[in-house]
Amino acid sequence: MRKQLCLTLVLIMPVLMQVSRAQNQDSLTIRKLYSEALTNPVAYKNLEYLCTKIGGRICGTAKAEEAVQFAKKVFEGMGLDSVYLQPLMVKHWERGKKEVATIISKKKGRKDLHVCSLGTSIGTGDAGIKAGVVEVKNFDQLKAIGKAGIEGQIVFFSRAADESRINTFESYGGAVNQRAQGAMQAARFGASAVIIRSATTAHDDFPHTGVQHYTDTVKAIPAMCVSTNDADLLSSWLKEDPSLKLNMVMDCQNLPEAPSANVVGEIRGSEHPEEVIVFGGHLDAWDKGEGAHDDGAGMVQGIEVLRIYKALGIKPKHTIRAVAFMDEEIAQRGAAAYADAAKKKGEKHIAGIEADRGGASPWGFSIDAPDPQLNKIKSWKPLFAPYNIWFFEKGGSGVDISSLKKQGAPVIGLVTDPQRYFDYHHSGNDTFDKINVRELELGAAAMAELVYLIDQYGL
Amino acid sequence: MRKQLCLTLVLIMPVLMQVSRAQNQDSLTIRKLYSEALTNPVAYKNLEYLCTKIGGRICGTAKAEEAVQFAKKVFEGMGLDSVYLQPLMVKHWERGKKEVATIISKKKGRKDLHVCSLGTSIGTGDAGIKAGVVEVKNFDQLKAIGKAGIEGQIVFFSRAADESRINTFESYGGAVNQRAQGAMQAARFGASAVIIRSATTAHDDFPHTGVQHYTDTVKAIPAMCVSTNDADLLSSWLKEDPSLKLNMVMDCQNLPEAPSANVVGEIRGSEHPEEVIVFGGHLDAWDKGEGAHDDGAGMVQGIEVLRIYKALGIKPKHTIRAVAFMDEEIAQRGAAAYADAAKKKGEKHIAGIEADRGGASPWGFSIDAPDPQLNKIKSWKPLFAPYNIWFFEKGGSGVDISSLKKQGAPVIGLVTDPQRYFDYHHSGNDTFDKINVRELELGAAAMAELVYLIDQYGL
Repeated sequence: MRKQLCLTLVLIMPVLMQVSRAQNQDSLTIRKLYSEALTNPVAYKNLEYLCTKIGGRICGTAKAEEAVQFAKKVFEGMGLDSVYLQPLMVKHWERGKKEVATIISKKKGRKDLHVCSLGTSIGTGDAGIKAGVVEVKNFDQLKAIGKAGIEGQIVFFSRAADESRINTFESYGGAVNQRAQGAMQAARFGASAVIIRSATTAHDDFPHTGVQHYTDTVKAIPAMCVSTNDADLLSSWLKEDPSLKLNMVMDCQNLPEAPSANVVGEIRGSEHPEEVIVFGGHLDAWDKGEGAHDDGAGMVQGIEVLRIYKALGIKPKHTIRAVAFMDEEIAQRGAAAYADAAKKKGEKHIAGIEADRGGASPWGFSIDAPDPQLNKIKSWKPLFAPYNIWFFEKGGSGVDISSLKKQGAPVIGLVTDPQRYFDYHHSGNDTFDKINVRELELGAAAMAELVYLIDQYGL
Repeated sequence: MRKQLCLTLVLIMPVLMQVSRAQNQDSLTIRKLYSEALTNPVAYKNLEYLCTKIGGRICGTAKAEEAVQFAKKVFEGMGLDSVYLQPLMVKHWERGKKEVATIISKKKGRKDLHVCSLGTSIGTGDAGIKAGVVEVKNFDQLKAIGKAGIEGQIVFFSRAADESRINTFESYGGAVNQRAQGAMQAARFGASAVIIRSATTAHDDFPHTGVQHYTDTVKAIPAMCVSTNDADLLSSWLKEDPSLKLNMVMDCQNLPEAPSANVVGEIRGSEHPEEVIVFGGHLDAWDKGEGAHDDGAGMVQGIEVLRIYKALGIKPKHTIRAVAFMDEEIAQRGAAAYADAAKKKGEKHIAGIEADRGGASPWGFSIDAPDPQLNKIKSWKPLFAPYNIWFFEKGGSGVDISSLKKQGAPVIGLVTDPQRYFDYHHSGNDTFDKINVRELELGAAAMAELVYLIDQYGL
């Protein structure tokens, strides 16, 4: 027995030593990824420019084009193997100058609310819309009231995000259908317009915009959102004066589609250049703030992964590619264009990683892949532990890369601390000063580590 | 074999079911702790008052006394079994009105730096101190230069916090001895004063104060800190003009000791009232900001644990006690007074938990206890997992409770996300607006969960 054990040990020793040496080398390289990220604030400075010099950048607008040129210039300054634009057509919606909602109540007086138009909403015309208000919490209630109670009225969707949820993405998820589908649902019963409580757990005066969808089968009606504080106020005034009127004026409009682009930069693989690891975030952002957490952060973090590789002189075996996706917020045309091009070019994606949950401290990864791949990533947990990266669970990735799943690629989302994200999301509060440099850098480093391990060991 | 298995199952089934029922009951109760914390922003409102109505509150000052009265009033409004002050004497240092450092350089011109006096520093007198500057990175360098180079000069300690560390507490730990001992070390070589780079990874214009210590064996000399941006500037000007002078004026002073107090509130245990679980943070705070993260957050979180118990009607078996400790920042007299009183009263502390690492998202607990207790806490990890509480490691607790260890109590620190903490710590940037309500509440809930489990199952 003892002899056998000795023989086994002698036989496997070289393998064990090799594994241990490789792990040790990996540990050292990974430490360098984090040090590089934490000591050179390039991602932070890129984000500062994007947020404070360009600002909000809805696809199809001049600001979005400025952002495309900025991203291209950043990539071009990095000594990459390839930088290119991936052209596509996008919807073009302009907010305009007017977005006002005024309560007119004989009992309570007049009051302007903190509101803004929802993305793709039509305007009200110069005359505006003045009507009574029907408050509902959900679509069932809307149906129960029916056409008789709703026709010609403004529907007020007032369901609050559930603050007791631990993950704010669940709080948001439980409230956001009002914003996305409220107008089309209310229009079925003849509503003249909708006003919707902002989908956030925060209690403040920021209206949170976002896309809303029309459908061909019912008439398009104007849709705006209202801050949570003013949603509470409107509810309370309605209780005291159910006959109050709301006067809405919005001059937003949908224009003809416009040309735009994804921006791509890559380092070609030394062994498998035809196999791609893609990562990044989206370049477009809502216009009320500066698109700092959503998703300037993820976009610059993608670029930062390439910068770290270049700075450390690491040569990837596979092609590693950062993409600044266009039009995540409205119709995901950038995601579609990217997936189409990959298919046409016959590229094999061995992984897609998206950072689009805000630039707070990284927790880990949400992995949309079959169990063997999921488990392989989980086996790397000890290599992430020194960096406090602990979350590795099956779950959704991100809308810009999720369609690569159909092409067989494992798709992965960077998971960050979610508590503050919806304080900022889609609102005037999503500004550069809400970004912590170290949290941003650690997110980029965590992505760089995952890219490194996938490049070394495949999935 | 099968029969035996069946028999075993029949025998242990009731036990298993009981365990499972208990765990299920625990899970339900724990969920309620978090829901109560997340839906009633009482801790946040207490902190708002403490920060914005009272503000900075160095022990011995009128503001600290105001804070004592505020904490007492909050406790008294909660329907607790007992609320009391624990009197003690504290040092009394006043910052005064003047804290100026001006570079005077024939080559570069004059420049006022962003500086502030360090806690317990003597003043310079009205005339101020004008002298040349000797820059050093550490005490070895100071020694190497020696008396000949230092006598009469102002020593500038310029070692930066290491940004490449993953945990900012390590970055801070590697730099803070300059602040704590710089004056006494430089005085040994005849320095006339010291100016010290702020112990933070942030690059900004905030000087970060903190305590510094004199010793009886050398003369006390004035000590101030300078913002990291201005430390960089001073270094760079010194390179261009080594003969530049610095003019320091400070009118801070040490006054006679003053009476103060810890503030204590408790719910008596239904089964073991003589056994105590104590938790909380410190009431005193540096005066440049509002003491929001350090440590208003931890203080209100301690109170919040009791509030959650009262709100849910949970009756603890052991006495659970929140303490707002006085004088954490200067001489830890509150910690000493608490430990002394516990000893005198013969109280048995079954655990001490301190929250003094900032009000960001909770990660878990740093546990200073023998392995059996550590492992018992680790066995509860599955009950913490739904709340993203994942960190359970052996480590330091907190200075206000660490002396309870000598009395045999396991002592535990609440660990929170450390990335932003030293942006605020001891500076004018530590203000209420830097607190996220959900992060604060989740920290209180995590403490409440640990208190609940210790109360149910002991350690």
